[in-house]
Amino acid sequence: MPSTLAQLAETLSAQGVPCRIEGDSQRPVHAVATLEDAGPTDITFLSNPKYEKMLGSTRAAAVIVRNDQVVPDGMNVLRVPDPYEANARLMVLLHGYRRHPFAGVSTAARIAATARVGEGAAIAHGVTVMDDTVIGRNVVLYPGVFVGPGCTLGDDCVLYPNVVVYDRCVLGHRVTIHAGSVIGQDGLGYAPVGERWHKIPQAGIVEIGDDVEIGACCAIDRATLGKTVIGSGTKFSNLIAIGHGTRIGPHCMFVAQVGVAGSVNVGRHVTMAGKAGVAGHLTIGDGAQIAAMAGVMRDVPEGTKVLGAPAMEMSEAKRMMSAQARLPELRDRVRALERELAELRARLAADDGSDPRRA
Amino acid sequence: MPSTLAQLAETLSAQGVPCRIEGDSQRPVHAVATLEDAGPTDITFLSNPKYEKMLGSTRAAAVIVRNDQVVPDGMNVLRVPDPYEANARLMVLLHGYRRHPFAGVSTAARIAATARVGEGAAIAHGVTVMDDTVIGRNVVLYPGVFVGPGCTLGDDCVLYPNVVVYDRCVLGHRVTIHAGSVIGQDGLGYAPVGERWHKIPQAGIVEIGDDVEIGACCAIDRATLGKTVIGSGTKFSNLIAIGHGTRIGPHCMFVAQVGVAGSVNVGRHVTMAGKAGVAGHLTIGDGAQIAAMAGVMRDVPEGTKVLGAPAMEMSEAKRMMSAQARLPELRDRVRALERELAELRARLAADDGSDPRRA
Amino acid sequence: MPSTLAQLAETLSAQGVPCRIEGDSQRPVHAVATLEDAGPTDITFLSNPKYEKMLGSTRAAAVIVRNDQVVPDGMNVLRVPDPYEANARLMVLLHGYRRHPFAGVSTAARIAATARVGEGAAIAHGVTVMDDTVIGRNVVLYPGVFVGPGCTLGDDCVLYPNVVVYDRCVLGHRVTIHAGSVIGQDGLGYAPVGERWHKIPQAGIVEIGDDVEIGACCAIDRATLGKTVIGSGTKFSNLIAIGHGTRIGPHCMFVAQVGVAGSVNVGRHVTMAGKAGVAGHLTIGDGAQIAAMAGVMRDVPEGTKVLGAPAMEMSEAKRMMSAQARLPELRDRVRALERELAELRARLAADDGSDPRRA
Repeated sequence: MPSTLAQLAETLSAQGVPCRIEGDSQRPVHAVATLEDAGPTDITFLSNPKYEKMLGSTRAAAVIVRNDQVVPDGMNVLRVPDPYEANARLMVLLHGYRRHPFAGVSTAARIAATARVGEGAAIAHGVTVMDDTVIGRNVVLYPGVFVGPGCTLGDDCVLYPNVVVYDRCVLGHRVTIHAGSVIGQDGLGYAPVGERWHKIPQAGIVEIGDDVEIGACCAIDRATLGKTVIGSGTKFSNLIAIGHGTRIGPHCMFVAQVGVAGSVNVGRHVTMAGKAGVAGHLTIGDGAQIAAMAGVMRDVPEGTKVLGAPAMEMSEAKRMMSAQARLPELRDRVRALERELAELRARLAADDGSDPRRA
Repeated sequence: MPSTLAQLAETLSAQGVPCRIEGDSQRPVHAVATLEDAGPTDITFLSNPKYEKMLGSTRAAAVIVRNDQVVPDGMNVLRVPDPYEANARLMVLLHGYRRHPFAGVSTAARIAATARVGEGAAIAHGVTVMDDTVIGRNVVLYPGVFVGPGCTLGDDCVLYPNVVVYDRCVLGHRVTIHAGSVIGQDGLGYAPVGERWHKIPQAGIVEIGDDVEIGACCAIDRATLGKTVIGSGTKFSNLIAIGHGTRIGPHCMFVAQVGVAGSVNVGRHVTMAGKAGVAGHLTIGDGAQIAAMAGVMRDVPEGTKVLGAPAMEMSEAKRMMSAQARLPELRDRVRALERELAELRARLAADDGSDPRRA
Repeated sequence: MPSTLAQLAETLSAQGVPCRIEGDSQRPVHAVATLEDAGPTDITFLSNPKYEKMLGSTRAAAVIVRNDQVVPDGMNVLRVPDPYEANARLMVLLHGYRRHPFAGVSTAARIAATARVGEGAAIAHGVTVMDDTVIGRNVVLYPGVFVGPGCTLGDDCVLYPNVVVYDRCVLGHRVTIHAGSVIGQDGLGYAPVGERWHKIPQAGIVEIGDDVEIGACCAIDRATLGKTVIGSGTKFSNLIAIGHGTRIGPHCMFVAQVGVAGSVNVGRHVTMAGKAGVAGHLTIGDGAQIAAMAGVMRDVPEGTKVLGAPAMEMSEAKRMMSAQARLPELRDRVRALERELAELRARLAADDGSDPRRA
């Protein structure tokens, strides 16, 4: 959708983003691109100061920058309070979201007679929908998707190829699940009997709220009893494992390869960075931030940032890590103390030996 | 299957579990539920003391508790030596295991003419079974399963949707593999030639013993030569990676996101907690316990618990971690020593200066 | 393909590998096997000195060893400069690579009318190829593969069962992707709006170079803008996550469960061992080596080895780890110093008390 810089600024303003053009407001803009890749009809943005030096070499039609950003002479700029957010809005405007290449219910999909499919749903060839499952309106199921018996999918869900949803799981509205992810497999529930492991039936389900997006190749265990919950608005990256009976609050964000064991309670708007892990039966408070590769072994209070394995509160962890980094120096200081003290003792011993008062 | 508390106690007793009812033995029980979710026809249990306070608020028909557990007045209880295990038995009794919604061999499955399928097998539409493969009796293959040429699957195996088994792999009896897992892909076998990597044919297989259960989205490399082995009775959670030529003993339990490199020998009844990793060519002794996120870089002797990255024997690791946690304090103590020693030297220097014997 | 030891030596020599037979050069050899598993018609090799003691017990027809290796009397050996590499060559010769059990385009594959399929391609039943996609010559697509609209696959690519390639992604020639891997799903791109996350369209693609091999259950995000790149000749093991916009150079090798966040620049011939993680927006120089479980939080210069989490240069990390290991000892030394200093002060105080000069 080609536009001029002025038209884009007008649209952003109408969305409540204060913005100001410097340079050629009639410059045509066709697409958004990175500073590095942008060509003469692309708009780009500078948000991370790390990339500031690229302002000098970008070929972009215009650059979205912060209000106080210094820019090279003659550059067309769109000044806004938050360039990252303004750019995201222009991406929606100029690129839009993926259009799904399926419509209607394929005759080569296998849909149980007792399943119900909502109006406008697009169910591709090679999809399986089992008995008593309810598929909402405008749902898109890509080839290879399997939805087990007794499931409920809300309206406008999108399940990419080869997603598997086990029996009786419940998805809210507008849930997106990327290719290869599995929802509702049995968790690791066994009773030890001698050295053997006796399987405990996993009778619970997974319940996913509205507006959840789950990356590729994730695995979310069903609960042993009751439900594993992924709260509304929560977003997962790829290769994430969630244990049975864990409840994750709304609006969380989990980066790739995060693993949360079973029976954990995670609050709202919690972020977990890449490869973070949480042990079983813990509580993670609202707004907590778990650093990349952190290994959480204790409850994390509301609003707390934790770091390290085992994870500690951020400032404590940094104090410890700084002490660790200076550990070789500390060892040298202890060695110096030992030497000095030995000298002192030797000298005092010599004094004593020559001291008539001691004799 | 509705029962009374008395009937359940009788069944448990018949299975060798000593149990004693307190309260209304005729109370009807329909299902098992958690302390939190249980309604008036559910039985629940208390095993983890962390949840003891929930005894006061549960609406359960009855609670399975330890023999010496103090409970609120008027609560119906079933006293047993091990509530977790007794509850597992009741779950089998009241809920049973998943019933698979397929029967017979679908005409929309692709089964090679040279493949053999055992009596009672359920092979769904969209399954592929390649040449010379043998499928045991009562095996269940869900849609999207691919079993390569020359494989053998024992009796009563269950492969959930989209599981892939590469050529010539061997599964024992009663093997369960959850959705999206891959068995027998080529391992990372390359010979370095200059800066290039020349692929080494991966001529071996994967052999899985009886009664193994593997979670979702796991990846088990075939051996370069010989076989990668998963011993009988071993249980895996999700997103686990096993390298080529690794041999894992019987009755092990691996939690989600564990990774074991190639050519590792793991003994029997070894447990690895979430995200633990083991480097290549090591030996892990029988009964070893590898903690969550441990990074094992050396052999682990039989019966040893290890912790940390690089992993150390548990007590050693704890001593080191406790010393680390008090590192800022240690630094303060060294600083105090330096100060005191400096004062002492200053004082002695002053003394010396005024000491006629030194003159 | 049965041969004699002499014939194998001749073939290796013709490939430029200097080799010398000791023992029976007419000994027939049918296959390659491990030292442990080799039978009387197998050849095996000793490369890792750890397995040297197995020379005494192997039943192999012959053993490939280093020029200076001491061997038991009467053993047939093939002496070469690099036994691992010579063995890899014999594996190609005696075992070859997997032959794919499909030929031609199945009538049960779903190929869009606007897609183009190269000569010699083998497209199995249950494959989906969407609109405007171009499939190169001799490509093999196993059942359950999904290739979205507008993709390009070069010649001789092999996609194992259930691989998913999202829209517009580009694969070079001779790319192999193992089962269950996903290429080009949306990355974790959201703009925070209050406590909600607004999805940013992921308008970029993934571009994979020639001769890349990717393991099972990997997930490679498409770029938000521009492209995520996997350089030619790069090899991935299983369960690897690559974030949006990351560019990985040629001839890298990544072991299982590696995770690289978004917007990272990785040079050429970089190795990352198992479970290593790299934070976003970093640069990893050519030839860098990232140790297993390392957590890289800063740029890594060319040719540098890093270790630990947070990752440090190898020698620095080892110094710190050695200091850490001796931390309990250091604490004891500080305690001893405190004791000695206290004694010294007590003695001096006593001296002072009896010292007429102080009075």
